[in-house]
Amino acid sequence: MEIQGYSIDFEKIIKTIKKGKYKKIALQLPEGLKIYSSRIIDFLEKKTDALIILSADPCFGACDIANYELKNLDIDLIIQIGHTSIPDSENYWIPTLFINAESKIEVLKVLKKSIPIIKEKGLIIGLVSTSQHIHTLGYIQKFLSENNLKSFIGKGDNRISLKGQILGCNFSAAESIAEKVDAFLYIGSGNFHPLGLLLTIKKPVIAIDPYSNNVKVKELEELKNQILRQRHGVIVSLKDAEKFGILIGTKRGQQRIDLANNIKNVLKSKNKKSYMIAANNFMSEILEGYRDIDCFISTACPRIAIDDYLQYKKPIITPIELEILIGKKKWADYKLDEITSI
Amino acid sequence: MEIQGYSIDFEKIIKTIKKGKYKKIALQLPEGLKIYSSRIIDFLEKKTDALIILSADPCFGACDIANYELKNLDIDLIIQIGHTSIPDSENYWIPTLFINAESKIEVLKVLKKSIPIIKEKGLIIGLVSTSQHIHTLGYIQKFLSENNLKSFIGKGDNRISLKGQILGCNFSAAESIAEKVDAFLYIGSGNFHPLGLLLTIKKPVIAIDPYSNNVKVKELEELKNQILRQRHGVIVSLKDAEKFGILIGTKRGQQRIDLANNIKNVLKSKNKKSYMIAANNFMSEILEGYRDIDCFISTACPRIAIDDYLQYKKPIITPIELEILIGKKKWADYKLDEITSI
Repeated sequence: MEIQGYSIDFEKIIKTIKKGKYKKIALQLPEGLKIYSSRIIDFLEKKTDALIILSADPCFGACDIANYELKNLDIDLIIQIGHTSIPDSENYWIPTLFINAESKIEVLKVLKKSIPIIKEKGLIIGLVSTSQHIHTLGYIQKFLSENNLKSFIGKGDNRISLKGQILGCNFSAAESIAEKVDAFLYIGSGNFHPLGLLLTIKKPVIAIDPYSNNVKVKELEELKNQILRQRHGVIVSLKDAEKFGILIGTKRGQQRIDLANNIKNVLKSKNKKSYMIAANNFMSEILEGYRDIDCFISTACPRIAIDDYLQYKKPIITPIELEILIGKKKWADYKLDEITSI
Repeated sequence: MEIQGYSIDFEKIIKTIKKGKYKKIALQLPEGLKIYSSRIIDFLEKKTDALIILSADPCFGACDIANYELKNLDIDLIIQIGHTSIPDSENYWIPTLFINAESKIEVLKVLKKSIPIIKEKGLIIGLVSTSQHIHTLGYIQKFLSENNLKSFIGKGDNRISLKGQILGCNFSAAESIAEKVDAFLYIGSGNFHPLGLLLTIKKPVIAIDPYSNNVKVKELEELKNQILRQRHGVIVSLKDAEKFGILIGTKRGQQRIDLANNIKNVLKSKNKKSYMIAANNFMSEILEGYRDIDCFISTACPRIAIDDYLQYKKPIITPIELEILIGKKKWADYKLDEITSI
């Protein structure tokens, strides 16, 4: 079975279902693959004896693993396509299979284009990517070597499945090699990952997008500066804030309850009021009712505060930004919030 | 502590927390009370030693009880204000306390206005209401009696907590007395409940709204006819539908998986393809990705198909409407979908 533009290991899915004699399976697909859901279900139901129930709740990443709520539906296996496992969250109640969706897009063209730009930044390069393009890193390493560029692929912490993989909330695979490289080469689309890398590691980043054939360096630097100005402005504007809402994500990979407790204690020691607010998906409407709160601090997905900040009526800051606000950290030490392995 | 317009038994909440020595409590509030959340949390944290975590996910009814997802947050008690328990779903993983929010609005004025209209419909009246106004039924019964009107208050099935209470998905308290009454008197605001009553019980309904002082009879009949025309049109339009999506709600009180299985089997016997789709909250965006599905059948909240039908791009029908579509039931037997006690 073929999904246009992607390589997905359906053989492994079928083998797992047959071997485990699974009969009632929940299928999770990322938003971009949901249009293929009936084709995928038809195929899996034809090849196995299992009933496939599509889980239609939003599935932005491995954090969104369906689990507790399916227990009553007698689901015996969960298959999530398009994301990789978060190893340190793997004690799932229902057996869970992650199957990556590898993009078939060619990287050679944009890679060639990037060589002179890479050479401006240095001769030792760290390679990072997201799950969609991570399988190209070996090829890229070889190509760089043929162009007299040495490269490293780092190993992330226990929230990272694949060598060289970064998440929007975890750059540990880059951090592990940061000291020995001059710059990072990011392969993939979107700005959030390379921007997070820039804000976290503080080494030059070259982002190559095999879809648009764009090589971004300066644009990322400008975006970084724009975000830093925004974040600085937010923090300064909050110096008189008195009432804080501490957001706790109930999604599997985002339950930082200890961090939330620490924040509550720190705020208490500064004579600030705080309220703990838990939710699955912090959409803007969810937070609209809390008009007397001056500021939210998100311990849920780190992207909420940075990526979606214009959607919310009240400022949302990260735990690190709170530390800067209350003087526990300096602005010079600004970093992006990461969810790292416990 | 006072919440404007409502009587809420905070004493019972405090007593329960102290008696159970609960330390970490999740608080759920209906949308209309969320603006009071910080006041309620301040009060409960002052009166007890517990930490209160607000659950900010939408809470439309007792179906939305937070539960599984809070287990990892070490929550030892869940308090849901504004709804009553669904007795047959009470095997919660975490101890759960439902506290009703009784409206303080006076019913006498609109009740007086309704007496001549009630008398046009009959002399024996069934009384029904929602949890907000249910405490007025005794008073109303006495007033009707003084006006030479006999009235009954029915007992619902095991999904209903209070005598005379109806839910948007359960009219069993009315059904239990339907044979011996000439008409029903509904106390409350909104059209969905009295309309559901009209569509389910087929006796005259007089709806009195103590907020607007409106007495509705004819308007409800017209709305009923409008909905019946709509529903008939939807069913007729689906006679060539080939691909069905069977919606399964993962909310506690809506997991009708057996019904979903039955529907799948019935469709199979008619050579129709079907796909099972599970989600917590079937917002319109959630179903937009499934373009090749001709029609959805909702086994989740019965209101989805009727109340929200304009929001969805594809038709959604109820299990009863499917039976009419495939000829298992006649249009004359049209009823609203109910979730009844198992």
